[in-house]
Amino acid sequence: MRSPQRQQNQTQETVLRNGGIETPSPRPRIQAHFHSTVSEQKLRRLNILILVFRFATLCFSLAAAIFMFSTTRARGSKSPSWTDFEALRFVGIANAIVALYSLFEVGASVWEITGGTTFLPEVLQVWFDFAHDQVFAYMLLSADSAGTELARSLKGKDTCTESNAFCIQSDISIALGFAGFLFLGLSALLSGFRVASYIINGSRFHL
Amino acid sequence: MRSPQRQQNQTQETVLRNGGIETPSPRPRIQAHFHSTVSEQKLRRLNILILVFRFATLCFSLAAAIFMFSTTRARGSKSPSWTDFEALRFVGIANAIVALYSLFEVGASVWEITGGTTFLPEVLQVWFDFAHDQVFAYMLLSADSAGTELARSLKGKDTCTESNAFCIQSDISIALGFAGFLFLGLSALLSGFRVASYIINGSRFHL
Repeated sequence: MRSPQRQQNQTQETVLRNGGIETPSPRPRIQAHFHSTVSEQKLRRLNILILVFRFATLCFSLAAAIFMFSTTRARGSKSPSWTDFEALRFVGIANAIVALYSLFEVGASVWEITGGTTFLPEVLQVWFDFAHDQVFAYMLLSADSAGTELARSLKGKDTCTESNAFCIQSDISIALGFAGFLFLGLSALLSGFRVASYIINGSRFHL
Repeated sequence: MRSPQRQQNQTQETVLRNGGIETPSPRPRIQAHFHSTVSEQKLRRLNILILVFRFATLCFSLAAAIFMFSTTRARGSKSPSWTDFEALRFVGIANAIVALYSLFEVGASVWEITGGTTFLPEVLQVWFDFAHDQVFAYMLLSADSAGTELARSLKGKDTCTESNAFCIQSDISIALGFAGFLFLGLSALLSGFRVASYIINGSRFHL
């Protein structure tokens, strides 16, 4: 699909090249107008979809981080803490990083929907979004997988029989982290599409 | 960027629309020829890059699977086996699946470079490649992260002090799996670009 702007330019160029007929036929102009209305609607819908994914990522990863951090040991208590296990530290910190990043991206997405332009310069924004989505999605999945394996190995051991609440809390945190990863992966698909669109068409939307 | 074929067609169409001048000016034809030579070179280079990534994935994941499967317990021996630990089963089987898939993809890639067409119908091939690359990359990373956590927890325990060879072998297998994941992730980027290209231009290459 070509952008309507470019289609119109092409038609005019070719018209000029082929014998100096300066008035283009009215059909392309109507088409262009029709296309631009349709593409604006599609663009708006895509932007809103991205915002929804970002917001879902923010909610899940923030909840996961809070659940994990709230296992911190009270002074004098003997119950285990998330800082005692490297895999749980990885889960908590990865979720916190993703939550911060998603907060920024929700802001950037709202900015784009209301203002029509990207928050950073377009080329920077599309690459920034895609690279971070991709890397953070892998990071979050890796953290959650390691966390799952640790949680499985803790089951049935003293840690979990003595302080069951700690194990349940970290299980919930890991599950929430997987949900966050799901939405971050979906965001990565859409932002990947925007990058490809930008490379191919010079614009973040192909519509 | 438009495909040269389409560009030429457009020029001819517009020429016919604007007053029946049937001979297009020679400039677009030269441009089209120039574009097509450049794009064929680029297409070839991209195809070869994909083949290299596929082949690297195949080598690493096959090696990882073999390393993992070779820890199988001999009859009567007391040394541990990969089947004793769920995380190591996950690593071994994920690597075997990725190796099989990569073997198919190396074949498809060679087919495409030599024949110029995709092995499956184009729309099916681009979506098949991308979906599998994406899902298998996540699967392999998840397996390797879980395997790493297990290997860490085994360190210093009886399993590793009594049969050190088993621990070293599974460590190597996990490391090889991470290398396989790296190349699979790179393949996923390229095949994602092909899908986006296909959606936008109706052809798997934007060149």
